[in-house]
Amino acid sequence: MGVTEPAPADFEFDRSTAVSPDGEGRYAAELSAGWVVGGGLNGGYLLAVMGQALRAALPAKPDPVAVSAHYVSASTPGPATVAVDVRREGGSVATAAVEVVQDGATRITALATCGDLARFAERAPDVRTTATEPALPPPDDCIRTSDSPEEIRAFVPMLDRFDLRLDPAHAAWGEGEPGMTGVIAGWFQWPDGRAIDALSLLTVCDVLPPVTFDLGMPGWAPTLELTVHVRAHPAPGWLKVRHETRNLAAGMFEEDCEIWDSAGRLVAQSRQLALLPRPM
Amino acid sequence: MGVTEPAPADFEFDRSTAVSPDGEGRYAAELSAGWVVGGGLNGGYLLAVMGQALRAALPAKPDPVAVSAHYVSASTPGPATVAVDVRREGGSVATAAVEVVQDGATRITALATCGDLARFAERAPDVRTTATEPALPPPDDCIRTSDSPEEIRAFVPMLDRFDLRLDPAHAAWGEGEPGMTGVIAGWFQWPDGRAIDALSLLTVCDVLPPVTFDLGMPGWAPTLELTVHVRAHPAPGWLKVRHETRNLAAGMFEEDCEIWDSAGRLVAQSRQLALLPRPM
Repeated sequence: MGVTEPAPADFEFDRSTAVSPDGEGRYAAELSAGWVVGGGLNGGYLLAVMGQALRAALPAKPDPVAVSAHYVSASTPGPATVAVDVRREGGSVATAAVEVVQDGATRITALATCGDLARFAERAPDVRTTATEPALPPPDDCIRTSDSPEEIRAFVPMLDRFDLRLDPAHAAWGEGEPGMTGVIAGWFQWPDGRAIDALSLLTVCDVLPPVTFDLGMPGWAPTLELTVHVRAHPAPGWLKVRHETRNLAAGMFEEDCEIWDSAGRLVAQSRQLALLPRPM
Repeated sequence: MGVTEPAPADFEFDRSTAVSPDGEGRYAAELSAGWVVGGGLNGGYLLAVMGQALRAALPAKPDPVAVSAHYVSASTPGPATVAVDVRREGGSVATAAVEVVQDGATRITALATCGDLARFAERAPDVRTTATEPALPPPDDCIRTSDSPEEIRAFVPMLDRFDLRLDPAHAAWGEGEPGMTGVIAGWFQWPDGRAIDALSLLTVCDVLPPVTFDLGMPGWAPTLELTVHVRAHPAPGWLKVRHETRNLAAGMFEEDCEIWDSAGRLVAQSRQLALLPRPM
């Protein structure tokens, strides 16, 4: 009598991140124009494409527990090859090098440590969290990024890929009045009912506007390096996502991200080092 | 009349991290028994060895701005090869893959984005920091780790490599009374007058005892992944180093590190994901 599980093809996120085997340690992907942001493709989307290739290469280690990506050149929509080189597979974790290549040029090079978080949590069920869950107004009292003005959505087509509701307390930059707090926060869910899983978290950590918007520095902030730690499988429902920067120096800033699930669990932490946007 | 600059051979840190060319993109290192901690070599020390090889391979990009290392197997004292594969060298940054290999086995695999921080800071002198410098008692009111009992120093020979003074407010675990704050902090300097540079910071981010000591979980905490961002060249003098964890789950914890220089600048941030120590 069981409910039929939806197939991955039913969800846009799965279709746009899908990979297919293309030789030893190689996977073919079709990078989606739907994830364009400014001059390239969203870095979190590309992480999920890499995550799909990792899952295909390491089926017994389905979770990307720690992924460190260095962004080498801007990806473009269209065909790409994802190369996975498993450096070591042990009993509980595996380490692999992953690259996205287009037209012979490396777009992203990354390292990943993968495992099975469900198995880890079974063996070590203790959870101790002193980090504080962000307080947000209810989703319906927040600002839907998909309601952004047409000229912004033309520049950032990815805004149509997800349901993101920004906390108005950190969104006054939208009216040209940046709060100067270095924080942006909001609610996230997939718009078509796709479940939030570990793979989704790789993308969610990079979908908010650059936190520099809140510091009066609009514009695209190219990521140099982004590391994500997936700490738990998220419970169903809305995610809370919070970005913060605490140090701008030498033309760079860090962006720390926390993702909390509907059960109040800290499910992912990420930090990226990015270039400050050039004045527009 | 100028003062003669000390040669690298004058300082133990330089001698123990030195590499020499050993073929295309390969460097020979002699990993020092002085940096043993428990079952392996200190991860921060190994990062500095990799940093030396990166400097040799990329002389125009002397600073390891972002280094992400995944620890694959425990290193042992003795000969090692450091392989550097430059993936892209642009005008201001270069990205390289780096590995430490011993007896054909990968010990650490890492990615690094390198550049010239002095040049970056010249082009973008603006610094804005909302992070708060840790408050510490004066170094002479702190606990010298080199005064640890003999049985501890036998297990952790690296304690003789540096002058580390722990804040007594987070060191009562030394008397079996962990403060349960998830914080350890202290002062750091090289004992022989070697200057603190960007390379040193790669090591300093990993020299404190695991923050789990303060949570009543003594023992070695194997690093899975460690990313360091070097944000500025440090001013001469004592560094303040602070480690914190805010989430333990699925048998793992993150350890966030901040390093502040004597001028009150946040000079490095790092985060590692490590395995909780096994009960002793």
